[in-house]
Amino acid sequence: MIGVALLGYGVVGSGVADLLRQNAAHIARKAGQDIELRYILDIRDLSDTPYAGLAVKDFALIENDPAVRVVAECIGGVGVARDFIRRSLLAGKHVVTSNKELVAAHGAELLALAEARNLNFLFEASVGGGIPVLRPIAQCLAANRLSEVTGILNGTTNYILTRMFRQGVSFDEALAEARARGYAEADPSDDILGRDSCRKICILASLAFGKHIYPEQVETEGITALSGGDVAFAQAHGYRVKLLGRALRGENAPAIWVAPHLVSEDHPLAGVYDVFNGIWISGDAIGDVMFYGRGAGKLPTASAMVADIIDAVKHLSARKWVGWQPSEGGAPLPPKDLASAWYARFPDPADSLITPILTETEYAAWAEGQDIKPTYRIRVL
Amino acid sequence: MIGVALLGYGVVGSGVADLLRQNAAHIARKAGQDIELRYILDIRDLSDTPYAGLAVKDFALIENDPAVRVVAECIGGVGVARDFIRRSLLAGKHVVTSNKELVAAHGAELLALAEARNLNFLFEASVGGGIPVLRPIAQCLAANRLSEVTGILNGTTNYILTRMFRQGVSFDEALAEARARGYAEADPSDDILGRDSCRKICILASLAFGKHIYPEQVETEGITALSGGDVAFAQAHGYRVKLLGRALRGENAPAIWVAPHLVSEDHPLAGVYDVFNGIWISGDAIGDVMFYGRGAGKLPTASAMVADIIDAVKHLSARKWVGWQPSEGGAPLPPKDLASAWYARFPDPADSLITPILTETEYAAWAEGQDIKPTYRIRVL
Repeated sequence: MIGVALLGYGVVGSGVADLLRQNAAHIARKAGQDIELRYILDIRDLSDTPYAGLAVKDFALIENDPAVRVVAECIGGVGVARDFIRRSLLAGKHVVTSNKELVAAHGAELLALAEARNLNFLFEASVGGGIPVLRPIAQCLAANRLSEVTGILNGTTNYILTRMFRQGVSFDEALAEARARGYAEADPSDDILGRDSCRKICILASLAFGKHIYPEQVETEGITALSGGDVAFAQAHGYRVKLLGRALRGENAPAIWVAPHLVSEDHPLAGVYDVFNGIWISGDAIGDVMFYGRGAGKLPTASAMVADIIDAVKHLSARKWVGWQPSEGGAPLPPKDLASAWYARFPDPADSLITPILTETEYAAWAEGQDIKPTYRIRVL
Repeated sequence: MIGVALLGYGVVGSGVADLLRQNAAHIARKAGQDIELRYILDIRDLSDTPYAGLAVKDFALIENDPAVRVVAECIGGVGVARDFIRRSLLAGKHVVTSNKELVAAHGAELLALAEARNLNFLFEASVGGGIPVLRPIAQCLAANRLSEVTGILNGTTNYILTRMFRQGVSFDEALAEARARGYAEADPSDDILGRDSCRKICILASLAFGKHIYPEQVETEGITALSGGDVAFAQAHGYRVKLLGRALRGENAPAIWVAPHLVSEDHPLAGVYDVFNGIWISGDAIGDVMFYGRGAGKLPTASAMVADIIDAVKHLSARKWVGWQPSEGGAPLPPKDLASAWYARFPDPADSLITPILTETEYAAWAEGQDIKPTYRIRVL
């Protein structure tokens, strides 16, 4: 019998509690022993939930209970979540989290703390919701030197782009629909400005290349400048528009960025629609691999967290390592020197075109040389 | 320093040897210690290879060397491969293999032998080449009750179907091209009759549902009856033709079969072309997930075997369990009662059509009732 404490009873946290309860026998068989949810920390009143008896508001109760061996953090953000995770590790407890913002900003620090105390710090749910992707990168691809990770990492923007593509609606209309369906939050800035994708490509790149990449080091462009005309142009020329996070291993430093891209309709990433995510990985031996699935949502994300809890329970002493080291200098580069074709939007849509292969600098010089200047550009994958 | 012996120096075996040598430092870091390739067992002359000094022809040398802790089997088939794996396990050595025929036919027996001796028996490379899929099913999806596994599991037939679809060539022409490119063997029966896909869906279904499914229990239909007209009909109606292995959890027993299917062009499996594989999994919490990549080939498959070797080295005492129990009665069912739409080919192609939703029995009755009988049918996914 292993004690677990849950921090946060929001969308994901309530899913974790429900899965632990509903699939208890199955989970116990997988983990090799029973798992007991002992506490749920939340400032909300949980008396109407099935977990009224587990509700606590004081983290010290969890911190000081030696029967709690695993702490599952679903609070989010980088404030109390970071403090509680640090204190959990210092108290000798394994930690699993779905908190991408925290892992992207402070992953190296928390991994080092866990490593020093021989504890698990697992965060599969922080990228791609329920899609198993971090563990395959860390383990199954252990024999490979990875050269690239490219992903559709944000379901909200992919839903918006799908609506613009399929129904021909404007960005604003598609965003309103995403809000109405609960796919976009009241303040959708993190999604549509690319910040959420940026956090996730940071986590993926850190794992793939072994050094911590910080979000503020990554050039990030969202989809707010995109027009219905751009999407229609792409469609007419055999492309789809996708917001991609990309990380390419370079000679000295990796190139990492987030931006909308034109993706050929023949590419498997082009077939990732609606709120789904797709993560494309290239390695020297394995070639190209793609992982596809629901990138967010209560149960998919909770499913990944419960899998991490099970893994922590199975590795209470022989720690599982899915992580990286703190970065030593060498910040990632923006993709300035990466050559590709570009979609160039002109004031008269009939003039819009796909350029030959150019670096970003060459594109800028080409654009400057036009009599009528292009007003927007998107890189072609 | 951990000693490894390689059985078989064919396409995959030579890839394993090359990866272990070329990526030695990287692999040692991942495994936590150096890995030493001590023997390569093959009846061929290896004196022109970089491994002349490691070549042996007598398995007893490997069996009796206590420094060999892990045996990697790349011989294939169910003859000596089975014998050597049994003897390796009995001698206390961990085993990794890419041998799908053996795992599908004797997996439960070998898993039980490994379990009784607290040894690893790992076979990630037996399905999907380098695509990490067995480990994600076993581990990352531990919190889920899986309801379905559906896969494009054979690269040769998918290449043939892609050529028929894209270039409009006949089955025979496409097969000749696959042979010319080295994608099909001299005797392609195992591929085009669906036997290879059958072995792989057996392994996937055994893992997903926890009981051994044997190939002879699975209704298997290949692609040899497929005409260019069928593929053209599918294309004109928004479908692709794919050879699928399917396993659905049922009330009492799973339904498992291999057959060509019409797949809607909007389905992510439709975008899996050429020699690539795609494996689609549904679980109660995670929803739908797909794994995509190169399903065969020297380096992708070797990459999966090396990942298994690393995993075995990291779990020399705390054994890794990716497996299932022997089956207790309850053979899998053919999909007789599963209702779906059907493509019905008539002698005059202009009469060919997609039926309403019918079970297989209902389809047969409907076909029997036609004045001119349909000559072939394909289930719609």
